[in-house]
Amino acid sequence: MQWSETTESRGVLEQGFRLEIDGRDVPGVLWRAEGGAENAPLVLIGHGGTQHKRTGYVLSLARMLARHHGIASFAIDGPGHGERSTGEDFDTTWARAGIDDETVADWRGALDAVVAERAPSAIGYWGLSMGTMMGVPVVAAEPRIEVALLGLMGFGRANGDRLRADAARVTCPVRFLLQWDDELVDRQSGLELFTALGSEVKSLHANPGLHSAVPPQEFRDTVGFLASYLQT
Amino acid sequence: MQWSETTESRGVLEQGFRLEIDGRDVPGVLWRAEGGAENAPLVLIGHGGTQHKRTGYVLSLARMLARHHGIASFAIDGPGHGERSTGEDFDTTWARAGIDDETVADWRGALDAVVAERAPSAIGYWGLSMGTMMGVPVVAAEPRIEVALLGLMGFGRANGDRLRADAARVTCPVRFLLQWDDELVDRQSGLELFTALGSEVKSLHANPGLHSAVPPQEFRDTVGFLASYLQT
Repeated sequence: MQWSETTESRGVLEQGFRLEIDGRDVPGVLWRAEGGAENAPLVLIGHGGTQHKRTGYVLSLARMLARHHGIASFAIDGPGHGERSTGEDFDTTWARAGIDDETVADWRGALDAVVAERAPSAIGYWGLSMGTMMGVPVVAAEPRIEVALLGLMGFGRANGDRLRADAARVTCPVRFLLQWDDELVDRQSGLELFTALGSEVKSLHANPGLHSAVPPQEFRDTVGFLASYLQT
Repeated sequence: MQWSETTESRGVLEQGFRLEIDGRDVPGVLWRAEGGAENAPLVLIGHGGTQHKRTGYVLSLARMLARHHGIASFAIDGPGHGERSTGEDFDTTWARAGIDDETVADWRGALDAVVAERAPSAIGYWGLSMGTMMGVPVVAAEPRIEVALLGLMGFGRANGDRLRADAARVTCPVRFLLQWDDELVDRQSGLELFTALGSEVKSLHANPGLHSAVPPQEFRDTVGFLASYLQT
């Protein structure tokens, strides 16, 4: 694991990293509160389609987690995204055989590397849209993840079959967001994914509007939701 | 309007009242914070089927509103419920012609009477299940109501046609609760009622479990939701 230099912004330390996982180059960013506990809770942040590990809302989330709750977080570029862009289009990337297992291995490898350095007291996952295409398989595979914020996805997109297979294996508490007028994700299919999650404790939060129009308050509340489970 | 004696419980004043509205005897209870502002915000609390104006969760809500937020509230017995019980069964009561208009008149008459004495700075409505059977027509008819907590109801119960007709006239911010495994309210019909609400700002919160198994945290959060709109 190679680390870049640490930078600081209003009390939040940010440090890029780079890992090789099964021959794949996986770049990421770690955020944490300046002066925070070494074993602060940790959130894995999965970005959305066409976005990257340091896109605006990921950065915003990471800073809210650190500033308001002292929670660390990291993001990695998803397959074919950010520094891992290959020019291949979204659906082609996600239709490739083995893509889901590779993505799970990328996240688990990055988590192993971060955990080895920081020993977080608790671990959560945050990911909407493509962040849920990655997140359902990751959360299903990773017992260290104790709580997840998911949503803006159903079974109708490129890896729907994998999500259908893995949803019941998600058993931690989940908040699941849907946009009621989503132009990219069929409402019924999103409801089916929520229904299929194996978690005993899960809440659906749905609001009017298009895919990317999650209300600001709902977005901010996702931070408090994760913190309520991670800070004990 | 006749008032009973005021009682006090840990900082919450409670006072029964009695109104005659179009010849109907309408008994209610008003709660407010001891020493609170004369013009404190006010919430109308509609109880559920087979319950009454001072049933456990209504009392609990009224006390949380007063203690945590200084918000006053009142409840009245719904038609055929509590002190207005006639022995008639639930479906017979709600199938009677004119029942919805009478219920709206009861709530508006009680609101007029309370407003005349207290001049609340803002007004909200809280009602699940039968509280939504009453609440949708009341909120649709009453422009003074600025925010509503509704849910656990669809178009499939006794006054479904009235709810279908009135839902689009509900335009204030709404949080709408559903129980995903509701044995009394069809899930699809509940989703249709949420969809039909005319409010631009509305959120669906759905959780696993039967009709009466709303998670305690979701229940408590309804108080914070109303307070966030009523305390400005």
